[in-house]
Amino acid sequence: MNPGMAGAAYGFAGMGPYSGGQAEYLRVPYGDFNCLKLPEDAIEKENDYVMLSDIFPTGYHATELANVQPGDSVVIYGAGPVGLMAAHSASIKGASQIMVVDNHEDRLKLAEEFGAIAIDFSKGSAVQQVLELTKGIGADKGCECVGYQCCDKHGTEHSNITMNELVQAVKATGSIGVVGVFVPKDPKSKDPLQNEGHMDFDFGNFWMKGQRIATGQANVKSYNRQLCTLISVGKAKPSLIISHELPLDEAPEAYKHFDARDNGWTKVILHPNSALKSSKK
Amino acid sequence: MNPGMAGAAYGFAGMGPYSGGQAEYLRVPYGDFNCLKLPEDAIEKENDYVMLSDIFPTGYHATELANVQPGDSVVIYGAGPVGLMAAHSASIKGASQIMVVDNHEDRLKLAEEFGAIAIDFSKGSAVQQVLELTKGIGADKGCECVGYQCCDKHGTEHSNITMNELVQAVKATGSIGVVGVFVPKDPKSKDPLQNEGHMDFDFGNFWMKGQRIATGQANVKSYNRQLCTLISVGKAKPSLIISHELPLDEAPEAYKHFDARDNGWTKVILHPNSALKSSKK
Amino acid sequence: MNPGMAGAAYGFAGMGPYSGGQAEYLRVPYGDFNCLKLPEDAIEKENDYVMLSDIFPTGYHATELANVQPGDSVVIYGAGPVGLMAAHSASIKGASQIMVVDNHEDRLKLAEEFGAIAIDFSKGSAVQQVLELTKGIGADKGCECVGYQCCDKHGTEHSNITMNELVQAVKATGSIGVVGVFVPKDPKSKDPLQNEGHMDFDFGNFWMKGQRIATGQANVKSYNRQLCTLISVGKAKPSLIISHELPLDEAPEAYKHFDARDNGWTKVILHPNSALKSSKK
Amino acid sequence: MNPGMAGAAYGFAGMGPYSGGQAEYLRVPYGDFNCLKLPEDAIEKENDYVMLSDIFPTGYHATELANVQPGDSVVIYGAGPVGLMAAHSASIKGASQIMVVDNHEDRLKLAEEFGAIAIDFSKGSAVQQVLELTKGIGADKGCECVGYQCCDKHGTEHSNITMNELVQAVKATGSIGVVGVFVPKDPKSKDPLQNEGHMDFDFGNFWMKGQRIATGQANVKSYNRQLCTLISVGKAKPSLIISHELPLDEAPEAYKHFDARDNGWTKVILHPNSALKSSKK
Repeated sequence: MNPGMAGAAYGFAGMGPYSGGQAEYLRVPYGDFNCLKLPEDAIEKENDYVMLSDIFPTGYHATELANVQPGDSVVIYGAGPVGLMAAHSASIKGASQIMVVDNHEDRLKLAEEFGAIAIDFSKGSAVQQVLELTKGIGADKGCECVGYQCCDKHGTEHSNITMNELVQAVKATGSIGVVGVFVPKDPKSKDPLQNEGHMDFDFGNFWMKGQRIATGQANVKSYNRQLCTLISVGKAKPSLIISHELPLDEAPEAYKHFDARDNGWTKVILHPNSALKSSKK
Repeated sequence: MNPGMAGAAYGFAGMGPYSGGQAEYLRVPYGDFNCLKLPEDAIEKENDYVMLSDIFPTGYHATELANVQPGDSVVIYGAGPVGLMAAHSASIKGASQIMVVDNHEDRLKLAEEFGAIAIDFSKGSAVQQVLELTKGIGADKGCECVGYQCCDKHGTEHSNITMNELVQAVKATGSIGVVGVFVPKDPKSKDPLQNEGHMDFDFGNFWMKGQRIATGQANVKSYNRQLCTLISVGKAKPSLIISHELPLDEAPEAYKHFDARDNGWTKVILHPNSALKSSKK
Repeated sequence: MNPGMAGAAYGFAGMGPYSGGQAEYLRVPYGDFNCLKLPEDAIEKENDYVMLSDIFPTGYHATELANVQPGDSVVIYGAGPVGLMAAHSASIKGASQIMVVDNHEDRLKLAEEFGAIAIDFSKGSAVQQVLELTKGIGADKGCECVGYQCCDKHGTEHSNITMNELVQAVKATGSIGVVGVFVPKDPKSKDPLQNEGHMDFDFGNFWMKGQRIATGQANVKSYNRQLCTLISVGKAKPSLIISHELPLDEAPEAYKHFDARDNGWTKVILHPNSALKSSKK
Repeated sequence: MNPGMAGAAYGFAGMGPYSGGQAEYLRVPYGDFNCLKLPEDAIEKENDYVMLSDIFPTGYHATELANVQPGDSVVIYGAGPVGLMAAHSASIKGASQIMVVDNHEDRLKLAEEFGAIAIDFSKGSAVQQVLELTKGIGADKGCECVGYQCCDKHGTEHSNITMNELVQAVKATGSIGVVGVFVPKDPKSKDPLQNEGHMDFDFGNFWMKGQRIATGQANVKSYNRQLCTLISVGKAKPSLIISHELPLDEAPEAYKHFDARDNGWTKVILHPNSALKSSKK
């Protein structure tokens, strides 16, 4: 699908010749292999199943990369759709304690609905809060669900914030799964390191603690069948993150709101059927 | 053995209250548990078995952290004792191609004796040489066996050289095992990042390639029994790296030579029995 | 603890010199290593935590041996305490469908309380019921929690019933974890095979389906810390299986009831403090 | 390829609609996916590479199912082509001790050429010999490479011989990989159990020792690329087992000799090019 590179994705820059999936009709190459047959409740739960195309497997992938096991404590940076899906996945896997770090109240509230502890880094050091919740040891596992555009509490981008905090917030020998996007070039950044896709990384503590990092985009097809089953039996309910359902032609507006992290725009479902009226959950 | 931290080691700074092991007599805490009973050829092969105390398991650990599998190509940065033991371990595990990167001829020659391809970075880009040997794809797995004091070809320390080259020299989705020591503080460095144990790391390419890094000190006891058996049956011969056997009181001089990477000083065995005369292999 | 054999257990025939644990005082060899420190709610939840000593880790072990993954369907033979704990563990791990096979109503009712589907083999072929619930494919994974004294619906012992049914009820390439006890000698059996600990096993179908079997007693210490945490945060509630709490001197009577599988005697807690009055949940 | 069943194979009874591969021309369904591109030495080493189509991956699969690790001792039942390939694979993986059990001198001699210890069960109990070679503990891992037609030293078939001996010859907690074929029906057998594909299996000792069994046919495509590389670099030489190279029209005769285990007929290569004269290595 994408000669010369590992992996392909619809609408992801540089990952193959397929433009994004928000359209009335979709071309699916190798459709006999790529499509997933949904159960009989496909229409009834379409808002859950649509999450299988990307965001739910990506959040789940974060917990796989971090090797989350039953009983683990897990700290997740980012309460956007991916971070919330990681929290949901960690809960499904039997994590005992899930802490989600963000500074947007609407998102943190959703994290709590998935059974996580909300950690608002605008109200104090996230690392400190995690250490207090884990008796000073740090979480067993960590997930990075933000990416290179992560910001400090003043809204200034520093691509290394989440990774360096995870090294501190995760215990010695713990694993960190990284599904937030980091890029090899970032010409718009003011940071000369970040221009080259580099990062001022706390490798010394990372090594001294004997930690592990696993990265990369989700292998959607490795996960979507099992996750589909979990939706079908009611053990997974990813649609909980949806804040808006809009017709396709309102997509540009919706993207703007989501991009600006406007309060309450946690996840938008676009309906290609333009007859649909706007609805807000 | 070392309350409040993961792991303990004899003679490793900050890892427990036990000073180094080069002495006429050695105190072994929990000796009934910590000691390994050697086979009947213990004396005959003592130069092989002594490697089980640290260096052989550490090199093996690098290949475990990198998840080396039969048939893999592996690139190893560093042809010091640890790097050579990693090469030996990769060979034992059935790697199909082992490339060892260094700029010291004596060490690279030993790498070849262990069946590896020597890559002299003073004679051209190591990354380029690895890519040429792997049809442009990069090695399946990588091992870092140098640590934060890694140098460029002019002998100047840059703690990020080996890691950033490994990101380039290892294929997308490949794993990198790091046993070279990286420290949380390095007050003597002229690099302000390195002072804090930080590193200018190529995280963008690392993430884009979907690679993994695993770090940390060797769990010697997890490996030494199996490695002991391999020595006993003749499938492992770690003593191949030894260049000198010296009495204990020549240790300071030997350390100087080794530290300076003087030609031919690849590994020194110290004999507590001072009657032994100096010998050079 | 038990020279010459793998593993040791309190009160298990032939596994070391320690008699059973039902006593007012207990000798714990290597207590500094063997004991698990309970959280602050130790007394409040003592009926949950006491399950960590054996039955909960054993049920969990069954799901580990069977490699139960999130989204899996799992069939469990036996709704005694171990089988119920396996059902509970599978649920914690995110199994999508848990089927528990037994013929005792009280036990099957408890299985349902843990979120499982009760399969009563006295009312029709268990294999057939599992196949119907899994679209003819069989369960992804299977657990044997009965042992060599398994009986047919007429109450006659045939040591091979559960294993041969599991081969049929589990899908091709599926894994079966066996924690039910099977013994090398059974002099009292009328079956000459069973006298020698042998079994008329359906190896042909087992092999043709490419299945796996893993067996053995639980490594309690590998699991009890994580399971303890799950109890503490309220994600595990093993005490749900308890039917009776009795003073220690009523133990012989209680054992009789349990052994006879008398209705309602699903699990008995013995209190060494003899002041306790009998209570029935 | 084979709807309703796990796996498909050319020429294996009941595994899909494709007849055997011994022919002048071969139809390869989904050839773009199924074929493996050979390196430049394809013709020079064709006798090695041809083993990738079945026998080498199958032997390797046995060691994967048995989870053979560097340093392990391994006992392999059967010195036919599959057993010899398992021995070769175990050696590539760094096993410290490989014991191959058979009663045919020509085959056992080849086992020795692959670095294994030959165990002739016609000269004394194989189990006893393995226990003596492993200090009474048993081998770490075991491989079954014979199948249901295994025979005792008098040449009488008993389908349970190899499995029950493996339970004894492998240590407690050890794993057994089974690639020898066992069938669900065997109408020609005189043993009523074997008629139904059943076996008088020593489940009691199997369970008490906490062992594992993994079974099934090789996933050729999971292994053939790595094994191909090992041939190319000279670390694998499966052609060592070849005793005869014959033109295709001598196939029936060759099959007869092989089936009768005639001395010296260890493996036959058939050349579709009928111009080739018979040759014996």
